[in-house]
Amino acid sequence: MSNSSDLMEKLVSLCKRRGFIFQSSEIYGGTGSVWDYGPLGVELQRNVKEAWWRSMVLERDDVEGLDAAILMHPRVWEASGHVSGFTDPLIDCRTCKARFRADQMESALCPRKPSRKPGEHTDCELTEPRLFNLMFKTFMGPVEDSAAAIYLRPETAQGSYVNFHNVATSMRQRVPFGIAQIGKAFRNEITPGNFIFRTREFEQMELQFFVEPGTDDEWFEYWKAQRMEWVTSLGIRPEKLRFDEHGPDALAHYAKAAFDIQYEFPFGWQEFEGVHNRTDFDLRRHQEYSGRKQEYVDPVDRNKRYIPYVVETAVGVGRVVLAALVDAYHEEEVEGEQRVVMRLHPRLAPVKVAVLPLVKKDGMPEMAERIQKSFRAAGINSFYDDSGSIGKRYRRLDEAGTPFAITVDGESTSANTVTVRDRDTLHQERVSADGIVEYILGRLR
Amino acid sequence: MSNSSDLMEKLVSLCKRRGFIFQSSEIYGGTGSVWDYGPLGVELQRNVKEAWWRSMVLERDDVEGLDAAILMHPRVWEASGHVSGFTDPLIDCRTCKARFRADQMESALCPRKPSRKPGEHTDCELTEPRLFNLMFKTFMGPVEDSAAAIYLRPETAQGSYVNFHNVATSMRQRVPFGIAQIGKAFRNEITPGNFIFRTREFEQMELQFFVEPGTDDEWFEYWKAQRMEWVTSLGIRPEKLRFDEHGPDALAHYAKAAFDIQYEFPFGWQEFEGVHNRTDFDLRRHQEYSGRKQEYVDPVDRNKRYIPYVVETAVGVGRVVLAALVDAYHEEEVEGEQRVVMRLHPRLAPVKVAVLPLVKKDGMPEMAERIQKSFRAAGINSFYDDSGSIGKRYRRLDEAGTPFAITVDGESTSANTVTVRDRDTLHQERVSADGIVEYILGRLR
Repeated sequence: MSNSSDLMEKLVSLCKRRGFIFQSSEIYGGTGSVWDYGPLGVELQRNVKEAWWRSMVLERDDVEGLDAAILMHPRVWEASGHVSGFTDPLIDCRTCKARFRADQMESALCPRKPSRKPGEHTDCELTEPRLFNLMFKTFMGPVEDSAAAIYLRPETAQGSYVNFHNVATSMRQRVPFGIAQIGKAFRNEITPGNFIFRTREFEQMELQFFVEPGTDDEWFEYWKAQRMEWVTSLGIRPEKLRFDEHGPDALAHYAKAAFDIQYEFPFGWQEFEGVHNRTDFDLRRHQEYSGRKQEYVDPVDRNKRYIPYVVETAVGVGRVVLAALVDAYHEEEVEGEQRVVMRLHPRLAPVKVAVLPLVKKDGMPEMAERIQKSFRAAGINSFYDDSGSIGKRYRRLDEAGTPFAITVDGESTSANTVTVRDRDTLHQERVSADGIVEYILGRLR
Repeated sequence: MSNSSDLMEKLVSLCKRRGFIFQSSEIYGGTGSVWDYGPLGVELQRNVKEAWWRSMVLERDDVEGLDAAILMHPRVWEASGHVSGFTDPLIDCRTCKARFRADQMESALCPRKPSRKPGEHTDCELTEPRLFNLMFKTFMGPVEDSAAAIYLRPETAQGSYVNFHNVATSMRQRVPFGIAQIGKAFRNEITPGNFIFRTREFEQMELQFFVEPGTDDEWFEYWKAQRMEWVTSLGIRPEKLRFDEHGPDALAHYAKAAFDIQYEFPFGWQEFEGVHNRTDFDLRRHQEYSGRKQEYVDPVDRNKRYIPYVVETAVGVGRVVLAALVDAYHEEEVEGEQRVVMRLHPRLAPVKVAVLPLVKKDGMPEMAERIQKSFRAAGINSFYDDSGSIGKRYRRLDEAGTPFAITVDGESTSANTVTVRDRDTLHQERVSADGIVEYILGRLR
């Protein structure tokens, strides 16, 4: 189709043109690797989050939802190991006033010596690697002293751990059960990039599932399977997805086992979602640092008492959105003309159906407006468009990923029928106007 | 019923007990004025946000959604006036090492002189008032120098302004139209408090509606009326709501006119939502600071060109949640027993219906489980509870604000009927089990 950087460029351009994603603060030259979701992007994102929440919380008896704050007590991050361990080794170039990740020196380019090749640093004065913490730090309260220093959370998970007993008690849940969260997290990445793939501000969808020690391996396999199933339910092509196991060197300090679900992005196979066996590390550390018992006592069999193990599933909203966009992007020839079409799954498509009067006269606009109102009343996100030739309107809808287009034409007003155009097959069907809402509801199921 | 601080205490306690709201990082002694939404709170919050989004975005042709990032270019806040003007005057007590808001010295208590009365500061060495900026500051990128200093946004509005042209162009919108956002904002308040009323981290639901200068007064009145209508559609008692106009002294630097919608909280009449005429202040400043033209040119009549005026409506999710909780809280005597009942509007209630087998035998649990599954399949948030006496279960559901409880009893299994208990009227009705989903759907409409 096109090479990978080409494809990413085309996608970024389409996202701006169609209102999916804009560069943050663009009129000021942009903010590095920060992106804003436009009118279509925000609906796509809402659909992703709703699909996750529905499958993880609303359709299960054994998972409770939570929305913990971004700002937490600073001791949380000491307990979790993030203050001491959430670091990247950095090397400064004193000559060029630049900073690089120590593990990426081979591809680093000194900015004041553009004639050099990446990785060439002769004549440059490089420091020894130093550890740089990836958490954003800020100050709470009016006095800027160290006592008030707090962090923007780098993961939502800790909010679930510190609320484990609050949730278990208030909801009378027994282990095994989980706590699910969707929320923003922040990491001061040295090398963000690849559009919305790696950003310093991002939204996570994380489940912490608390289990009895000894049953964790089994639950780990269960959640691996569940999560792969969920991703494919969004219409993402299974051949673009695979599991990747973390070797002992790549395991995080808290993990006993970890698998990534990877997607084949244009820039290679990359992590999409992580499934981690975090053991009892976090709860045990919170017990130690807070002095508050984190042990679980089964309310029925009170001899069963233990600090639960945790199986975590963690996925970024932005990564799901990017994978969905990449997966949906197609260029093809239609009747001698080139078209770009976003084959988004109807569950994810921002707008489900467009209503188009063929021309702005002969009662067509009135009939089209009536039809659009009936979609809206049924809670179906619809879009009315009467501007430009019908071909132009179809092309815009293809780029927006709108699965169905209803055209009201000359025959419509007399015969009380409309045509329904299928975005993917381009098949057009004539349908009774009275049954159009039911018809589209059926196609969306 | 009870006095105001009593009521707030009871509410905070109920919120913790039933899983609505927990203190953040509670096991570490809490984080000042930061709160986490528990399993019921997060659903209540989702319902509030969905109601707002539906009425402001999905049901309108003239409003587009947006989700701008929290981290923006620092020049945005110079242009908006927040760097220079978003300040509180503070006074330090050098003797007691304390800091107070200059406009609240009369009620301030020096912490090292607890025997004093509030406002008594003799012997204390007080500084002159100094301006303290309310924005949280942090550093982006690995180098902690001033060039990389950025702020956590204190309002979502600026994200809509800097994207005005991106949205107008990509969605081919013509003025008048609006941009709506739901998202977190942060203010380093000196005196947060009153539970979730004033918090340093909060979620806003803001509309920026762009209009032709000269039509702004009319649109201002339109949005005032719309917003009051929305609040009452959530079931909040109209007699607890009123408009309050900002006098010339209270107007923000950008505002031509401002009205608050106030709710009578237990701690007095307080702002719930604001409707502001922000004029062309923000777009004009962004034009000046970015050097990028912010003028709107009408695509049809290209002689119509102007910097639009903005009517803003701004409400905090937490304030809607708090007003809904306060408004819903009732204590009453039922058959000689005291009960607490949360009369939440069915649209807002976290759980819509509970399914209760009277006893755990004789086929009742199986029938109740079947019924619960049918609710879930219909997308109705339901809850299965078989623990404790039926009276105890009703009390818990009353506190959770669950509008309907279905009981499966001895008669149910033979006659294929269930009883439906109405949370507010306590009326019980026997209904066919086959039609129960339709019945509840009807009651929820």
